[in-house]
Amino acid sequence: MNNGYHVAIVGATGMVGQEFIKILLQRRFPMSSIHLYASDRSAGRKVFVGQHEIQVKQTASDSFDNIDVALFSAGSEISKHFAPIAAKVGALVIDNSAAWRMDTRVPLVVPEVNVEDIKKHRGIIANPNCSTIQMVVALYPLHKVNPIKRITVATYQSVSGTGLAAVEELTKQAKIVLEGGNVVPHVYAHQIAFNLLPEIDVFLESGYTKEEWKMIEETRKIMHAESIAISATCVRVPVFIAHSEAVHIEFTDYMSPEEARSILSKAPGIKILDDPNVSLYPQPWLAAGTDDVYVGRIRSDASYLNGLVMWVVSDNIRKGAALNAIQIAEEAINRDWVKHVNDSK
Amino acid sequence: MNNGYHVAIVGATGMVGQEFIKILLQRRFPMSSIHLYASDRSAGRKVFVGQHEIQVKQTASDSFDNIDVALFSAGSEISKHFAPIAAKVGALVIDNSAAWRMDTRVPLVVPEVNVEDIKKHRGIIANPNCSTIQMVVALYPLHKVNPIKRITVATYQSVSGTGLAAVEELTKQAKIVLEGGNVVPHVYAHQIAFNLLPEIDVFLESGYTKEEWKMIEETRKIMHAESIAISATCVRVPVFIAHSEAVHIEFTDYMSPEEARSILSKAPGIKILDDPNVSLYPQPWLAAGTDDVYVGRIRSDASYLNGLVMWVVSDNIRKGAALNAIQIAEEAINRDWVKHVNDSK
Repeated sequence: MNNGYHVAIVGATGMVGQEFIKILLQRRFPMSSIHLYASDRSAGRKVFVGQHEIQVKQTASDSFDNIDVALFSAGSEISKHFAPIAAKVGALVIDNSAAWRMDTRVPLVVPEVNVEDIKKHRGIIANPNCSTIQMVVALYPLHKVNPIKRITVATYQSVSGTGLAAVEELTKQAKIVLEGGNVVPHVYAHQIAFNLLPEIDVFLESGYTKEEWKMIEETRKIMHAESIAISATCVRVPVFIAHSEAVHIEFTDYMSPEEARSILSKAPGIKILDDPNVSLYPQPWLAAGTDDVYVGRIRSDASYLNGLVMWVVSDNIRKGAALNAIQIAEEAINRDWVKHVNDSK
Repeated sequence: MNNGYHVAIVGATGMVGQEFIKILLQRRFPMSSIHLYASDRSAGRKVFVGQHEIQVKQTASDSFDNIDVALFSAGSEISKHFAPIAAKVGALVIDNSAAWRMDTRVPLVVPEVNVEDIKKHRGIIANPNCSTIQMVVALYPLHKVNPIKRITVATYQSVSGTGLAAVEELTKQAKIVLEGGNVVPHVYAHQIAFNLLPEIDVFLESGYTKEEWKMIEETRKIMHAESIAISATCVRVPVFIAHSEAVHIEFTDYMSPEEARSILSKAPGIKILDDPNVSLYPQPWLAAGTDDVYVGRIRSDASYLNGLVMWVVSDNIRKGAALNAIQIAEEAINRDWVKHVNDSK
């Protein structure tokens, strides 16, 4: 670990935090040091970074004094408080919480879509919501060719989006149900094993959940397309990793499934799995642990002439969170959009 | 069992067949005798009907000679062959397969929607596809007030729709996955435990599956609304019983969520579960084993002025299959639309 950047991870013991570490190593991110932070509760724990065991420290005001890149995934409250502190001392903050996403001063970035927005950062770049990231990766290449007017989407979101406790809850509840027992929910309002919950994040006045509203607002901001009409239904499903989405798209002009497949096959970050003859289509179980956004079931919308329907699946912890954040950091570095206040290279 | 009808069940050992028996008893259907039929493979097995143990016989050409009401749920091939034979000797066939649904001579009935169509039967009445039934029960009361122009729906369908073998497959696979083992799929093309499969029934040229196409065609036929534009994405989810649907509806004129709630609260067969403040919404785990179509998450469509979005859940074995078929029989009897060729009353 030399000849590189001083990296901090805030929320290092969480699912996304752990994936940050894994991906930094897998992609040989240029690090000269790594600093792990977490809440009071997790501080003191030791975490492996490759062969090295590193102690997790409690996040504090001086945690970022020599940091170049700070990856945050410890919830909105932590981000609201510490991201400006880190940015002020010169770190580039990439924040996975919802705290800064809709702030007009903060770029909200999916590199495949709006990498140029990174340039405008003032120290904080927001990482979008997981469901939004995979959808815009799949839709933006089509939108560039044939502007999208409306999107309606229904999601099938895995429990890892909620965190480790939810993964454990699904595991535990599934065992209890299979043994014929009764489940007492803790993490979710109701049983999630062998059940579905159309409730992700809090409910808003409109009857939409905040998760659904994020998909509307964030998609428009990332794609620079304020006029796209969007509606979403977000549903938690008993799947461990990877989110899936049934997406109905209305274009300005007609687009054939063949054209969409041709465009998407050349687009970055996308793999097409679409051959009904051999039951080939994206599945969350197979997407888990991989980097791509998988697109399949591409067909003309039987209810709308200029419409397409598709099925989009991606690992919500990787492309939906940790990977996208690290890709932002990589692009910022490669294009020299990181300030080197700490002159640490 | 006297002072009633001679009832035959074809496919008596299957999930829907077993539910037929349960519901006939629960609703005190006027039976003077019950005759259980199944395939070669299941013939000879004994099945309880209340306190009585009855032997299942192999379905044959003379199985319906003294039958008044024949409930079929043994697949399309059996229905194609035996339903006309049963109808010819005077039985009223209510067929749960897809064999006769789109036949113009055969009524396709959901009693809450088009009970009058029963009258036109010539011996066979078709029971619609499970996903279609619960959707039209929820949509028709709104359509009557404010004609629907377009429906886009994403389904979350339980494995019981496939049958007993699929329920056992989900159970077995879930255990294997929880123990860290690898799954070999048998019933489905891929693993269903903790996974999602956007493939129900066979794929068509259009890229839609037959299940998706059924939702389009059957909805139009049942609602007598040939011009409604419909698109569906049907997905198998790791849930045992009850199908769920995220439904986007475009009306002719504006309809507020309050108006929709008011209309649906007075409509037959529907229960509204819709209070975000206490996380109240329909869930398949709770709908299983009950009769109603549950509707919740009713909200204005953020992407379409005259649109509504809702979440519709119902037990696919009961209202989606056995219950609806028996309700058809009851209506036919109550309105004296059953021929009594056998004079068995």
